[in-house]
Amino acid sequence: MFLGRLRAVLPADALLTDPASLAAHSRDAAPFSEPGTPAAVALPRTAEQVQEVMRAAYEHEVPVVPQGARTGLAGAADAVDGCLVLSTVRMDRVLAVDPANRLVRCEPGVITKQLAEAVAAHGLTYPPDPASWERCTIGGNIATGAGGICCVKYGVTADYVLGLDLVLPDGRRMRTGRDTAKGVAGYDLTRLVVGSEGTLAVVVGATLALRPARPPALALLAQFPALTAAGDAVAAVTAAGHLPSALELLDRATSQAVADFGHPLLRSGSAATLIVECDSPEPLRELRAIELLCKSAGADNVVTAATPEESRQVIEARRLVSPALGAFAATLGGRPTAFIEDVAVPRSELPKFVATIEEIAARHRVRIFTLGHAGDGNLHPTVVFDEADAREFDRARTAYDDIMAAGLALGGTTTGEHGIGTLKRDWLTRELDPAALELQRGLKRLFDPKNLLNPGKVVQA
Amino acid sequence: MFLGRLRAVLPADALLTDPASLAAHSRDAAPFSEPGTPAAVALPRTAEQVQEVMRAAYEHEVPVVPQGARTGLAGAADAVDGCLVLSTVRMDRVLAVDPANRLVRCEPGVITKQLAEAVAAHGLTYPPDPASWERCTIGGNIATGAGGICCVKYGVTADYVLGLDLVLPDGRRMRTGRDTAKGVAGYDLTRLVVGSEGTLAVVVGATLALRPARPPALALLAQFPALTAAGDAVAAVTAAGHLPSALELLDRATSQAVADFGHPLLRSGSAATLIVECDSPEPLRELRAIELLCKSAGADNVVTAATPEESRQVIEARRLVSPALGAFAATLGGRPTAFIEDVAVPRSELPKFVATIEEIAARHRVRIFTLGHAGDGNLHPTVVFDEADAREFDRARTAYDDIMAAGLALGGTTTGEHGIGTLKRDWLTRELDPAALELQRGLKRLFDPKNLLNPGKVVQA
Repeated sequence: MFLGRLRAVLPADALLTDPASLAAHSRDAAPFSEPGTPAAVALPRTAEQVQEVMRAAYEHEVPVVPQGARTGLAGAADAVDGCLVLSTVRMDRVLAVDPANRLVRCEPGVITKQLAEAVAAHGLTYPPDPASWERCTIGGNIATGAGGICCVKYGVTADYVLGLDLVLPDGRRMRTGRDTAKGVAGYDLTRLVVGSEGTLAVVVGATLALRPARPPALALLAQFPALTAAGDAVAAVTAAGHLPSALELLDRATSQAVADFGHPLLRSGSAATLIVECDSPEPLRELRAIELLCKSAGADNVVTAATPEESRQVIEARRLVSPALGAFAATLGGRPTAFIEDVAVPRSELPKFVATIEEIAARHRVRIFTLGHAGDGNLHPTVVFDEADAREFDRARTAYDDIMAAGLALGGTTTGEHGIGTLKRDWLTRELDPAALELQRGLKRLFDPKNLLNPGKVVQA
Repeated sequence: MFLGRLRAVLPADALLTDPASLAAHSRDAAPFSEPGTPAAVALPRTAEQVQEVMRAAYEHEVPVVPQGARTGLAGAADAVDGCLVLSTVRMDRVLAVDPANRLVRCEPGVITKQLAEAVAAHGLTYPPDPASWERCTIGGNIATGAGGICCVKYGVTADYVLGLDLVLPDGRRMRTGRDTAKGVAGYDLTRLVVGSEGTLAVVVGATLALRPARPPALALLAQFPALTAAGDAVAAVTAAGHLPSALELLDRATSQAVADFGHPLLRSGSAATLIVECDSPEPLRELRAIELLCKSAGADNVVTAATPEESRQVIEARRLVSPALGAFAATLGGRPTAFIEDVAVPRSELPKFVATIEEIAARHRVRIFTLGHAGDGNLHPTVVFDEADAREFDRARTAYDDIMAAGLALGGTTTGEHGIGTLKRDWLTRELDPAALELQRGLKRLFDPKNLLNPGKVVQA
């Protein structure tokens, strides 16, 4: 009956019920998730179709799970049994680039890279650059409050969302926010929806702030004989007032994996590597100053790029982490898997945190490769192991949890930019104040009294 | 009985009930407000005292109106009859400046200027600079989501609030947010409370992000024979990718008032004046480029400061607006009054908006001086009139409302940075989507089910 109604309101190609499609849309990229099987997948092309779908689901009390590109790492886009998956990937138009007001209007299914290219054609930039930016959608970025590498200087997705076009769980349409640079009219519903992982409303359009094009960037890499030395360098860069556009850290294991993978600039045997990018008006001058700070802190291999081509090679060390870990995983045999963590700690606690992660890896006999955004204290320790080995799986899971506990103990958060989803829902109850948790549940009930929109994600209603 | 309980939980000097104190704490700086008379004023020094006060008010069902320095311009801090005014001005400690993590922890009663000075001593800056920054408190800035002049480049108060220490209407304490640069753990309660004008919770502490010290700035002023020419200049500055740290506009009446007041650099008879400040690493180079853009747009008087002293003189033109309007008002006789508006429009609509305001002034035979933040489309048209003249008062009120209607018609918001309070509550219902308005009321009920905390502000529960 519900599906019959959906067929009546959607074009024939916009409703999928074949097992292959259901399986393909059952989950995102999170570890440890146990997704359900959807009853159907809707692929609307318009906000009106989303409204029709939501009205039908509301009346028939069918849970709806919004999805973008399913690149999320917390299970927020995992299907629940019998749900309707509502994919917004076909709503993929950039509606208007407005250089005079430095903003862009778009639909939720636009891929981040396509949006970046569309605004670049007008001499503007949309900075947020999550690792999956070539595949992930703006709607997904908004749902998860996505970060990225350059947010150390330019901020995260939330900082660029001026207004939203939403469909509420009962099918009503709602605009939030504004087209103006500033505005304080009422409680900030826009910001409340950003990062809510599709549990409060479905994003059907967004107005995003833009910046002038970024100046050409240059980068350096610095390797250190001790982790504390790398920490000292990050502290010195901060203390000197620099604002790099990237400040990335690779721990000992990650540095070694990338060196073994054959990166020409990276030496073996290093305790930590920093990659620093600057896009100030005179990046080389700033990089030279940072080079000195790295050397004073004890760096024993520093490569400062003076040209864009050299810079590309430096940055390549960061980009190679993923293939290098893949190559390492392939040596494990069985069913090699990588669990990516997302803990953020106060920047000053980074060295202590990385050292603790190394202890955790040793204690549980798992390989953990830590890399991340040193500039804002947000690390992605990655546990690489053989999932076919049940005991190794258990040790990996325990290590994963121990890392979060360690992050919280250092005054951090269990998620800097990947979100809660189902993966960290239990951790949210440990991280948040009881009163805050109660209000979070109240917010969910306020927006979604029937608990139909992405139920069970972020908070249990 | 309620007062008896307060006396039991507060030091003797922390509870005022004398008529003079009640009168002094009855209102903020908003026009058109009709404040009530409080039953008492509490001046707690600690968060625990705030909790005691809130618990007592909750049990006795007494409304509580939080107050900072009462510099607000929307009536958000106006007393309601029989309420307890809860002033946080005595909670005025900067608790910790943390340069390694670029953050500061403070109590709500700290004056913005004092906070700025405390962090400057560590080579850091807290950018938000509302006009009242020498008197207003951080708690008030957070409550109103205050802006300022440099937010065109550096963002508003909301962008700097990492975490809050709150007391809920029933007296429970709640922490929101984090000490880390990034974090997406759950719905963003911090951002929800920022700008909520003390209607959801009482701010008893804040963790604020800081930036490296700003480089020394230089400024220029440019006068134009036509308003459209000034608009063209703002558009050209934007299109060229500049990010000035201030981009202020004075309309014809305001330019004339400041020239008449004796500013040496401002010529008479100008249709509009722009004041542009740059604090990039090479401000003079950027200013010279902006000077050319202003001249190309038709500026007939441009003064570009090459030294800090010259720059100070340029900026003085902006600072003199207030005394110049005061001098003009004094010539009116009666009870001269100034009503400050706060409409923001998309930047590209500025010239049209300013022209419309001039029409409104002529139509209602009132003097309106428009100045504001051209860089982010946020203007403060100021109606100066004789309040003793009832008909002039009515015309001023009508003009004030017409300006808001015009701003909304141009895709703007009725408040860029001053807030809703009681002044713009009716306008909020026109500005917001009906569904958004319903959710706003739901949020108020969720946080404050007894409707005791600053009742009647922002939304009617």
